[in-house]
Amino acid sequence: MTSTDEARRIGSTEPVWWGWGPASAHEPLPDEVRELLARLGIPARPTAPVPLDEVRLPPARLPAAVRDALATIVGSGHVHMHDEARIRHCRGRSTTDLLRLRAGDAWAAPDAIVLPADHDEVLAVLRLASRERIVVVPFGGGTSVVGGLEPAGPAERPVVALDLARLDALGRVDRESGTAELGAGLRGPRAEALLAEHGLTLGHIPQSWEYATIGGFAATRSSGQASAGYGRFDDLVVGLRVATPVGSWELGRAPASAAGPDLRELLLGSEGAFGVITQVVARVRPLPARRIFEGWSVPDFATGTRLLRTLAAGDLRPTVCRLSDETETVGGLARPPRPTGRAAATGPAAETRPAAETGPAAETGPVAVTGAVAADGPPGGCHLVTGYEGSGPAVERHTAEVAGVLLAGGARRLDAAAGPDWERGRFRAPYLRDALLDLGIFAETLETAGFWATLPALYAGVREALIGSLGAAGLSPVVMCHISHLYETGASLYFTVVCAQGADPIGSWRAAKAAAGNAIVAAGGTITHHHAVGTEHRPWLGAEIGGLGVDVLRAVKRTLDPAGILNPGILV
Amino acid sequence: MTSTDEARRIGSTEPVWWGWGPASAHEPLPDEVRELLARLGIPARPTAPVPLDEVRLPPARLPAAVRDALATIVGSGHVHMHDEARIRHCRGRSTTDLLRLRAGDAWAAPDAIVLPADHDEVLAVLRLASRERIVVVPFGGGTSVVGGLEPAGPAERPVVALDLARLDALGRVDRESGTAELGAGLRGPRAEALLAEHGLTLGHIPQSWEYATIGGFAATRSSGQASAGYGRFDDLVVGLRVATPVGSWELGRAPASAAGPDLRELLLGSEGAFGVITQVVARVRPLPARRIFEGWSVPDFATGTRLLRTLAAGDLRPTVCRLSDETETVGGLARPPRPTGRAAATGPAAETRPAAETGPAAETGPVAVTGAVAADGPPGGCHLVTGYEGSGPAVERHTAEVAGVLLAGGARRLDAAAGPDWERGRFRAPYLRDALLDLGIFAETLETAGFWATLPALYAGVREALIGSLGAAGLSPVVMCHISHLYETGASLYFTVVCAQGADPIGSWRAAKAAAGNAIVAAGGTITHHHAVGTEHRPWLGAEIGGLGVDVLRAVKRTLDPAGILNPGILV
Repeated sequence: MTSTDEARRIGSTEPVWWGWGPASAHEPLPDEVRELLARLGIPARPTAPVPLDEVRLPPARLPAAVRDALATIVGSGHVHMHDEARIRHCRGRSTTDLLRLRAGDAWAAPDAIVLPADHDEVLAVLRLASRERIVVVPFGGGTSVVGGLEPAGPAERPVVALDLARLDALGRVDRESGTAELGAGLRGPRAEALLAEHGLTLGHIPQSWEYATIGGFAATRSSGQASAGYGRFDDLVVGLRVATPVGSWELGRAPASAAGPDLRELLLGSEGAFGVITQVVARVRPLPARRIFEGWSVPDFATGTRLLRTLAAGDLRPTVCRLSDETETVGGLARPPRPTGRAAATGPAAETRPAAETGPAAETGPVAVTGAVAADGPPGGCHLVTGYEGSGPAVERHTAEVAGVLLAGGARRLDAAAGPDWERGRFRAPYLRDALLDLGIFAETLETAGFWATLPALYAGVREALIGSLGAAGLSPVVMCHISHLYETGASLYFTVVCAQGADPIGSWRAAKAAAGNAIVAAGGTITHHHAVGTEHRPWLGAEIGGLGVDVLRAVKRTLDPAGILNPGILV
Repeated sequence: MTSTDEARRIGSTEPVWWGWGPASAHEPLPDEVRELLARLGIPARPTAPVPLDEVRLPPARLPAAVRDALATIVGSGHVHMHDEARIRHCRGRSTTDLLRLRAGDAWAAPDAIVLPADHDEVLAVLRLASRERIVVVPFGGGTSVVGGLEPAGPAERPVVALDLARLDALGRVDRESGTAELGAGLRGPRAEALLAEHGLTLGHIPQSWEYATIGGFAATRSSGQASAGYGRFDDLVVGLRVATPVGSWELGRAPASAAGPDLRELLLGSEGAFGVITQVVARVRPLPARRIFEGWSVPDFATGTRLLRTLAAGDLRPTVCRLSDETETVGGLARPPRPTGRAAATGPAAETRPAAETGPAAETGPVAVTGAVAADGPPGGCHLVTGYEGSGPAVERHTAEVAGVLLAGGARRLDAAAGPDWERGRFRAPYLRDALLDLGIFAETLETAGFWATLPALYAGVREALIGSLGAAGLSPVVMCHISHLYETGASLYFTVVCAQGADPIGSWRAAKAAAGNAIVAAGGTITHHHAVGTEHRPWLGAEIGGLGVDVLRAVKRTLDPAGILNPGILV
């Protein structure tokens, strides 16, 4: 990253400090969504974020000697202690994070931001921090939605956000083996743009793709919208380079090995608590020649779920597959509004997006969606999007085979725009959330996964917990759900909650999240399919991995981070 | 396991104590192989194993109080201290293991064999052993070829072999999710027979399948001959139940999770050093309706390797795929002789084998192979076997697509018997080794894996190291190799060495293995693709996983096995 880029990122208004994406991509909530929410009894109460200069944050506590030592390592231009940089590195992008920021609360801001240039500088920073007992929070895209950037621990210790933005190189591309070395600080669009120059793609497109980074994908076990086709990010990782307080660690000598435990799997999902991932060697594939997205209506969520299971059992999982439940279908979030000024068309992502904009999706015009779904689908039906990527004949065959299963199972094909329209709006949800927050309406998500046999009870349990908890607080919640990641043995469930904020939105949500966490554990699901643990899911980690699992994580932490400087309170 | 079964296993002559499989399956080396070896300058020197009663082993050192305490846990009928049981649990099935046993050396025999009935009895044994500082070596099929059953550590501590044969139940079968609970002590054939009653299969068929166990597959990251179709065993594991000296541990709540590091991956490949795997929840698939095996001749190994890479890149990997190099093709081990009295037809495996014997393979008669290959293939060509399993139309399409790639790449189809013949002889190699050892001829294997770009140098490096080391000892080695596990990013290399024994076969092989290990590390491959680390690969584990990797394994070991009773010297 050049210093100009860095200045633009740290000091500019892009992205907005209080939400998602650049200001130019923000638009008011479309009238039809506003009307729908009003009909559902969710009141609008316009609420703007406070001005930047009214944000409150504590004085920076970094001793001058430590600041100078950090500057000696990374260069004085790469240590930032001014308010805006600190505010921009304060917490992540959960709704509770945004509510606090918008209200001017940046009390959790780090004392300094340090931008190392490379692996060795990261090592040096970690050695210094260990000696000086400075807390280090590895910072990629800052997109955590589970409190992963808000470490606990002794309040008197200064906190440094270790921003990896300068580790943004594409290293060696091994075309023969189909692997590429990717710097941890590369954001999704830039990584794809660099790979596209070689005719390659990662195919990892989570909703946070515009801002999230390669290192963050690995550290949180991210899963992209095309996970069934390309694999979860943990599947894509072939090798890792990690800087720890006690030294360097490189792993991954072969596609597969029986040389003891697979220690890469200990670093994937380590959320910055064991070390800082500085480079990922990832599996890469040729850019797809063909891309097809289709929209379907299935009779109900249970039928749709069974159809997805049939596809998974028959080795027919589409590259992308997203089944909305009845509420999400009616709510229209399956085909979200697509304002003309949206980020993907004007923001930094635009130059660097994968083939989506040039594929078949680009040929169809915008569609006002909420109404369209209601009109297209049979009453009570559920919206299903399927996507296929690859070489031409294989994609067409796959599309036809899936269509055969879906039609035989009672699905009805929607108009030709339904699939491409979803594809074009795939990054829209966080912008929509900002528009909802502007109206004082609460919106947040949570997710889980389970085996096919446990999925119906898991779905019902989480829904009831959310509706029960938020309903008891008088907040008229709308709880929507979709399945978007399929496996042979089960699938994910992704819940979106929209409700009034009430007097204490953060407290109400924490209670609802706790109820949902308990319901997930009771129904046998995982506490998180792809959002990671952070601070929000910590209470249920023991239920997920057992007491011995927690003991083992502690032992690993003591070995790699004996001074306990890395993201304290995360994982252990 | 009933006590009759147990008696048959512990006290009977089946399998033979000095080699592989039952005596009824053993036949002398076929004349044509004998002649071939003579032509290659490898002298035969008939060498029978010593009689059982001449095997030397140390007095059993287990204190009577400990024996009584063990008997209280598992029942007195399930603690064995007689010589034959101890000899049968002495070391594994590497060639150096067999050479020592055949020569009457059972100095490494455990002091007692304990057969717990279930998970709780395993826990109780581990608690007792921790208290009494008794070494415990978990024992599945006893088929380790890397010294995994010969723990190091203080010589004064008594050693108990914890034989898991009684943990042989098929637990809950979840047809909807496609998972099944399998007892750790289930051998391959029995597991498949139990699953077949539900119309299901694991599809995990390594060469050791007749004797190796579910727990062993997991603890060593086994990879079966159909790995490209069904996945390696670590891919098949959905959940694990583990007994450790500090308590029980269960993992695996969903098909995928972002709840921190995947700790299952710490137990897979743990080789009994962290705990005893007592149950595996595995992914299971419907029994294949159709099974096709084909034989091909490709111009040379390099061309064949490139063709396999093309298949892998095009998502066309056959379920089974085995490419022999020029030497293995000429040596005929690609289509090994198939004596009529072989194990799979008469041994315990026969009743319980998967569909192989009833598929197309069963329709063709035996073929005298060594000659056939030489006659079929063009001079200098390489033998390639491809296999396909699944539903009818998908299998036929897959077969045709692969054939298209192979034919376009210069491969020539062999006669119709070539594929099925390999399939029928797939478990034959260890029997053949016994026949070679009977003639005083040394035969052993080693394996590695690497990325496609590193594979040619890895192949050349290991070959040169083996030929150089054994050649310098004057042993005229024949070094054969095949690729049998394909990944998108690379493949495995499996070497078979046949040579004269010379004066010190064990010393010569250790030197050759060390040279090969160094060559593997230098060429960037993994020290083991599916044989595990054991004691044989320990010297290179640090090169594979780094100093920090070793430190982390040590920390995990201290946490789960604080008294250091489990397989000491293995992994850490």
